[in-house]
Order: sequence, then C-alpha cells, then structure tokens
Amino acid sequence: MLTTLFKTEPATRAKHSPLDDLIRALGKLPGLGPRSARRMALHLLKHRETSLASLMQHLAATQQQVRTCVRCGNYDTQDPCSICADANRDASVLCVVEDVDDLWALERSGAYKGHYHILGGTLSALSGLGPDQLRVAELMQRVAQGEITEIILALGATVEGQTTSHYIAERVRGLNIIVTRPAQGMPMGGELDYLDDGTLLAAFKARKNI
Amino acid sequence: MLTTLFKTEPATRAKHSPLDDLIRALGKLPGLGPRSARRMALHLLKHRETSLASLMQHLAATQQQVRTCVRCGNYDTQDPCSICADANRDASVLCVVEDVDDLWALERSGAYKGHYHILGGTLSALSGLGPDQLRVAELMQRVAQGEITEIILALGATVEGQTTSHYIAERVRGLNIIVTRPAQGMPMGGELDYLDDGTLLAAFKARKNI
Repeated sequence: MLTTLFKTEPATRAKHSPLDDLIRALGKLPGLGPRSARRMALHLLKHRETSLASLMQHLAATQQQVRTCVRCGNYDTQDPCSICADANRDASVLCVVEDVDDLWALERSGAYKGHYHILGGTLSALSGLGPDQLRVAELMQRVAQGEITEIILALGATVEGQTTSHYIAERVRGLNIIVTRPAQGMPMGGELDYLDDGTLLAAFKARKNI
Repeated sequence: MLTTLFKTEPATRAKHSPLDDLIRALGKLPGLGPRSARRMALHLLKHRETSLASLMQHLAATQQQVRTCVRCGNYDTQDPCSICADANRDASVLCVVEDVDDLWALERSGAYKGHYHILGGTLSALSGLGPDQLRVAELMQRVAQGEITEIILALGATVEGQTTSHYIAERVRGLNIIVTRPAQGMPMGGELDYLDDGTLLAAFKARKNI
C-alpha cells in the first residue's frame, strides 16, 4: 500500500516542483539554455539569503518603480525620464535608436548630449513590423513641436536599419530638419584583414585627408 | 537655478536606479556578464506581465518551498526528499556525488535507481575544503546504519574528484561495503581523434571483448 503511494507521488510532485518551474522560467530568458538555467537555479538556492533574496528584491523594485518615458521610450523611475528632464541636454538634437540598449550604449560612451527617441524596432516586412508598430507617430509629434533641428538616425547598419532610416528621412523631408547618421568605417582597434568587405568598402569610400 | 538642479539630480538617481541594481544582481549570477545581464533586464522589463511576473513568482515559491533534504542533501519541497522517501528505490546502494546538478544529471538519464549522498564539493587543499567542509560525517552516519552494501563514487574524473574518491574508499574500508566508480572510457558518439590522451589511455586499458 505504502509502496504504491510512494511510487507515484514523487513523479507527480517533481513535474510541478517550484524548482522545475523556476528552471523553466529562467530557461526562457534570452541567452539562457536549460543547462545554464539549471546552474543559475542551483546558485540561487545555494545563496538563498544573498543572491536569491537580492534578486527578488531588485526584480520587485524594478517592477514597481521603473516606468516607460512617455516621450522618448526610455526606462526610468521618473516620467519624463531623467534624460528628457535634463535641461542641460540639447533638446534641439534628437537621436533615433532602435531600442533601450542602444540608448544605454550611447550613454555609456558619453558621446552624445542630446535627446533620444526609441523606435522599438526597425521596419521589417518579415516580422510584420510596419510604421504603426513602431513609435513613428510619436516621433512625428515631437518633430511637429518645432524645437528639433537635427535628427541623428543611429539605427543598425543592417538592411532593416537602413530601410527604416530612409523611411524616417523621407517622412521629415521638407520640415527643415537636418537628418544625419553615424559615420561608417573601421572600428577603433580594428585590423584590416578582419574586416568584412562591406565595412572596408564604406571605410574606403569615406576616406579622409590626414 | 533649475538648470543646476537638473544637472546633478539625474546622475545621482541613475546610480541607485532599481534597473541598475537589477542588472548588477543579474550580472553576479554564474554565466552572465554585464552585457547579457543588461539584455536579460531589458527582456524582463519588456515582458513585465509575463516574464518578470512569472520569474518573481517562481523565485518566491522556490525560496518558500524548496528545502535541503537532511539525509542526502538534495533540494526538494519535502524533507526527506522524494528520492529518499521513495520505497521503490534500492536503499542498499548509495551514489556519492559532488553536487545537486550531478544528481539531476543521473536522474535525467534514468541510469540509477538507488539513493544519493551529496558531498557538497571535493577535497581541495587550494580551496581550503577538507572533510569537515564536506558532508563526510553525514555519509559515515548513513553508512553506520548498516543498510548500505554498495557505495558508487560518482565524482568527477579530476585530480580532486579522484583524491576524494580514494579518501572515502579509505574511510569505509573494513565495513564490508563494496566501493565502485563509473567506468571510464570513450563517451557515446565520441570520435577517437577528438578524445584527450587520458580518456584514450583509460579506454584502452579497460578494453573489453566483443
């Protein structure tokens, strides 16, 4: 009697165990497979009072406090975000990026002191992403306010990125706004024989006097 | 006045933002660097109602419900764990493994139907891990109960793993217990010219008639 009970019980339990659920949830995150998810879950369990507790606390704080900036699309605890609210930044220049991580990369570099607009992707017929799925209407609204004199299209140097750049440039044509994009060429520290043909071609076309 | 206020405020805020804290907490997990931690945090924010909510829920359930089995050291919602409590498993065979993920790997393979004992590491003078830091005393207690007739030392085929195996074999000598270890040789699907010298040597030494 007892034997039969024990035999079926653990198998049922194992399938619905919180640990298995956690591993499954972790495995769905970008860049994590089942193996790394298991390793991570094990690490969290071993460091229950430190890692697990602090991760839970930071997830809760993020969920409760972080909002999307209604103007630029950035994530921040305040809306408008600290970049949009910063009066020391140049509000006449708008940098259009694909996603928040591009904004983060530019902020880390310190290369840019204007405002941002996050598109939320690039035009892609394959993924069914048209202008209505991106934050293009919001961009046109900001442009219509008349403060912006330059738009930097910092989208990826991919087919989709270039298509989207051309589309936006077309949309703001005639509004007396300078439309630019970051220079293409050799990356710093890049070695010639490791570069792809497209980059080499772009770098040679745009060569400069020294 | 306002300009100065805005200038300093966002910089201070950014450093203590819940999002930055989350990225830092994620970046400390095994296998995640700052870049993948940022990507993960962004994914969680974008899927606030699905990924973020479900991860928080599963972390909380794991923290509240998952315990360490006092007998074998496995993680489960019950103590003794479902493996120790399973009367259908052979309680006379004890498989000694380094950590819970080794137990999981063996359970996935279905190769083993006995009980486990998790050591919690291997003897390592460099890491300051002696028998007292591992669950050796608990192992000896279980052995002393007299039910166990075979101990399988399924520790890594590393110097530390082998040292630990020899140490345990020494400790249980004279107790009338068979001490074994998994066979060493070519992995299934392994190609000869990809194998290291040590594996080839072990496989040739232990060659069998076919």
